[in-house]
Amino acid sequence: MKPLVHPALDDITVEGILHALSDPTRVEIFSRIADSGCSTNCASYLTVGEKAVPKSTLSQHFKVLRDAGLVRSERVGVEMQNRSRCAEIETRFPGLLAAIIAALKAQAGERASARPRKKRS
Amino acid sequence: MKPLVHPALDDITVEGILHALSDPTRVEIFSRIADSGCSTNCASYLTVGEKAVPKSTLSQHFKVLRDAGLVRSERVGVEMQNRSRCAEIETRFPGLLAAIIAALKAQAGERASARPRKKRS
Repeated sequence: MKPLVHPALDDITVEGILHALSDPTRVEIFSRIADSGCSTNCASYLTVGEKAVPKSTLSQHFKVLRDAGLVRSERVGVEMQNRSRCAEIETRFPGLLAAIIAALKAQAGERASARPRKKRS
Repeated sequence: MKPLVHPALDDITVEGILHALSDPTRVEIFSRIADSGCSTNCASYLTVGEKAVPKSTLSQHFKVLRDAGLVRSERVGVEMQNRSRCAEIETRFPGLLAAIIAALKAQAGERASARPRKKRS
């Protein structure tokens, strides 16, 4: 089985973090992991927002988050458990993740209040 | 001549900002524009860091920054003048750009102090 690779804290880059979080699905996954105090199972992200996410796509998203240093994954039996590395990143780039998460929440709030839900025809 | 398109403030997204700033060259260009109080000329970015940036690549980088809502460009004669939209973005996503720029400066400081300049052979 392929080993799970996590970058050392010193090798985490701002550009890598921004790239990983520039995708709406990934950012939603990461926000949920960051909000959750404990490890979460990959399978709990098979629906993100209102979208079903194929398992292979989900694996790829987790790999990008892991490579950027945002999450730490661990195989537990047949499951993959993930937890955020927010606390570590905070020591190198204080305030960065908090500011991004706050901005995303502000944006989600605006979207929820401003736009009535539309169905595409 | 193709018109320069700038998104309305309400159409600027966090994901768009993060994507635009996830490229090292673009982030360097944007930091310099944000640091500069006044409009800057595209041509002053033909060298970024120690790299020469081809004019066509530079145009593409400015387009991405413009589309993300990070800069406002204006044609003045044969030149393109650019200024940051930090103040506008601050009203929608307070602290976001400041946190990103601070993290990038911390990273640049670490790199400058930790690594002796290497030549690739």
